[in-house]
Amino acid sequence: MSLKEEALALHRRYRGKIATSVKVPLRTQRDLVLAYTPGVAEVSREIVRNPESVFEYTSKWNTIAVVTDGSRVLGLGNIGPEAALPVMEGKAALFKEFGGVDAVPLCLSTQKAEEIVEIVKNVSPGFGGINLEDIETPKVLEIKERLIKELDIPVFHDDGDGTAVVALAGLFNAMKVVGKKIEEVTIAIAGAGSAGYEIARILHRVGARKIVVVDSKGIIHRGRREGMNRFKEELARITNPENITGKLDDALDGADVFIGVSSIPNLINPELIRRMAKDPIIFALTNPDPEILPDVARRAGASVVATGSSQYPNQANNLLVFPGFFRGLLDARARLVTDEMKIAAAEAIAGLVRKKELSADHILPQAVDRKIALKVAAAVAKSAEK
Amino acid sequence: MSLKEEALALHRRYRGKIATSVKVPLRTQRDLVLAYTPGVAEVSREIVRNPESVFEYTSKWNTIAVVTDGSRVLGLGNIGPEAALPVMEGKAALFKEFGGVDAVPLCLSTQKAEEIVEIVKNVSPGFGGINLEDIETPKVLEIKERLIKELDIPVFHDDGDGTAVVALAGLFNAMKVVGKKIEEVTIAIAGAGSAGYEIARILHRVGARKIVVVDSKGIIHRGRREGMNRFKEELARITNPENITGKLDDALDGADVFIGVSSIPNLINPELIRRMAKDPIIFALTNPDPEILPDVARRAGASVVATGSSQYPNQANNLLVFPGFFRGLLDARARLVTDEMKIAAAEAIAGLVRKKELSADHILPQAVDRKIALKVAAAVAKSAEK
Repeated sequence: MSLKEEALALHRRYRGKIATSVKVPLRTQRDLVLAYTPGVAEVSREIVRNPESVFEYTSKWNTIAVVTDGSRVLGLGNIGPEAALPVMEGKAALFKEFGGVDAVPLCLSTQKAEEIVEIVKNVSPGFGGINLEDIETPKVLEIKERLIKELDIPVFHDDGDGTAVVALAGLFNAMKVVGKKIEEVTIAIAGAGSAGYEIARILHRVGARKIVVVDSKGIIHRGRREGMNRFKEELARITNPENITGKLDDALDGADVFIGVSSIPNLINPELIRRMAKDPIIFALTNPDPEILPDVARRAGASVVATGSSQYPNQANNLLVFPGFFRGLLDARARLVTDEMKIAAAEAIAGLVRKKELSADHILPQAVDRKIALKVAAAVAKSAEK
Repeated sequence: MSLKEEALALHRRYRGKIATSVKVPLRTQRDLVLAYTPGVAEVSREIVRNPESVFEYTSKWNTIAVVTDGSRVLGLGNIGPEAALPVMEGKAALFKEFGGVDAVPLCLSTQKAEEIVEIVKNVSPGFGGINLEDIETPKVLEIKERLIKELDIPVFHDDGDGTAVVALAGLFNAMKVVGKKIEEVTIAIAGAGSAGYEIARILHRVGARKIVVVDSKGIIHRGRREGMNRFKEELARITNPENITGKLDDALDGADVFIGVSSIPNLINPELIRRMAKDPIIFALTNPDPEILPDVARRAGASVVATGSSQYPNQANNLLVFPGFFRGLLDARARLVTDEMKIAAAEAIAGLVRKKELSADHILPQAVDRKIALKVAAAVAKSAEK
């Protein structure tokens, strides 16, 4: 069977990937009296008296909503909420399996930012956190900003925050492999969507200074007019200290690191890699087809290559991040996702590759490794408590 | 331990009553490839090609939202969405345990009908049905009407539809006990909220003609001005053929059946029962304290007494209805809840009390009986297929 046939067969066989389950006994009349009426009324009264106790008496403490409008799903584009559902169910299943987090898909039929914000706010009483997923940029950044301001539960955006954490983790270890320092390297990022934005921000936060971000209109710089928004304006302020202009070629000239989150397969070629600094690092993270194939990049001189795909070594997979990250947020009852948590999570992931195992083809742990979520959760919770 | 202490302890011990669970294997790298990226993209593409296949490839076919705004929770009133959550989780747990239905609580922080309608419409792509719960009347009837028009999945309102089904089931058997016919008896209903409205409608539908509904302003009749809304106008049209006016006392004078869904404990007294017809039937369904205590009603001459409470014989519990009813709706992929389904469900419930068991103290099956949901589901699905 082809991948397609096998994937369809799996989904048909199980008719979806997640279900609900019951945590309490419901066998006897007495069980019903305690879990439902009239006993449950006492629990409701207690929550009226002490609203915070909703985290003790209900599943809110462990339940998050995985929210999408289906406007930018995987590499498929704007396919709408129904077609996004199998992806959200997959995410929810992974949240549970790897992080023990109860995640509920909410696939919305509106694609208006204002309405999405209102819906999420209005459903938030039952949830301990919100995971935004596969919503187009810059809309999703606006939605996230609004929700962070208006909600008292954490809002995580896997396409941005999760990708930034895994890229940072990979880069921490890639730096060790090539013997360079993050504060000193020149980093070219292709793509200024959610992932590019968050990667640039977190790299700046950990001390990288020579970052240049390139989008379809060229290098983002102060004074650029075309194709800007306030998130790109922020990038123009914190990156590109020499305020260079030009195209991707100019950004790659002499760069130590390329990070591709462009959604454009085969964006770069061997010629461009040859123009980079010594021991170049290539993170070609676009899925399913990367900005350059790993073997092509290696033949052109790349020292370390990572992709988003499980077909090659060094898979920079968000699965390394989101289950453990939300486990940690929920365990600590964190109200916000902070840069410190992201850095702590990236360090935890990087630390899972032992020194003697670390190599150009092994900068990140395997996605199926169950230890990862535990370590990430502990790191995030510890950071939250500070 | 008191009921209160025991209920609080149970909820604290389990920290809520429902969770999510994973239906597919997620152990190996290959499992991830099939259930998540890149395999899941094939499933999304298939749903784009054939939107109906979302019922085959995702959990939509078996997943419903239990929607409340917390405006009228149990006997507690307007306690808001957080305090309503343990009740909704209880409902969701019972849906799963008795009906195998995956139910997700959505506790909304808005109480505006228009916003609730918009939210439910916008989240509906991920759900196979909507259960409205503990929303005040007449708002909930307006919401339900709008949603039925605008959604292509069934909308069930347990406080109205569920209560009507269980009351009808009880009445079918009570008629047998006293040897009367539903078409001939005079029925006084106290309460014109969701339950009163739906009970009156379904009784009319099965042929009852001498129905009188009473609310806080007295008997509902054609020409009444005070405290009316369009749902009560509908009741004025289909009930009270002689268009009598007056108070509850007048409605009960010579009545064969009293159905109390008034939310007023001790609304009626022995004196009123003595003014009813021979072999009066008393359904005092207000919870937790009924319109009259069963032993008081029996001493005053009531032949059959039912309540909403598990403390007494003949508990008219909605649990007899909703898990099986939604199981049937989902199994049949029904788009609407019809009167025929409700009548079929009531007949199925009534039929679960065997002839030789049927007595004044045994007109309904026990709530914990697992057979009920199976029978109700089959009856609803069969009715849907017609």
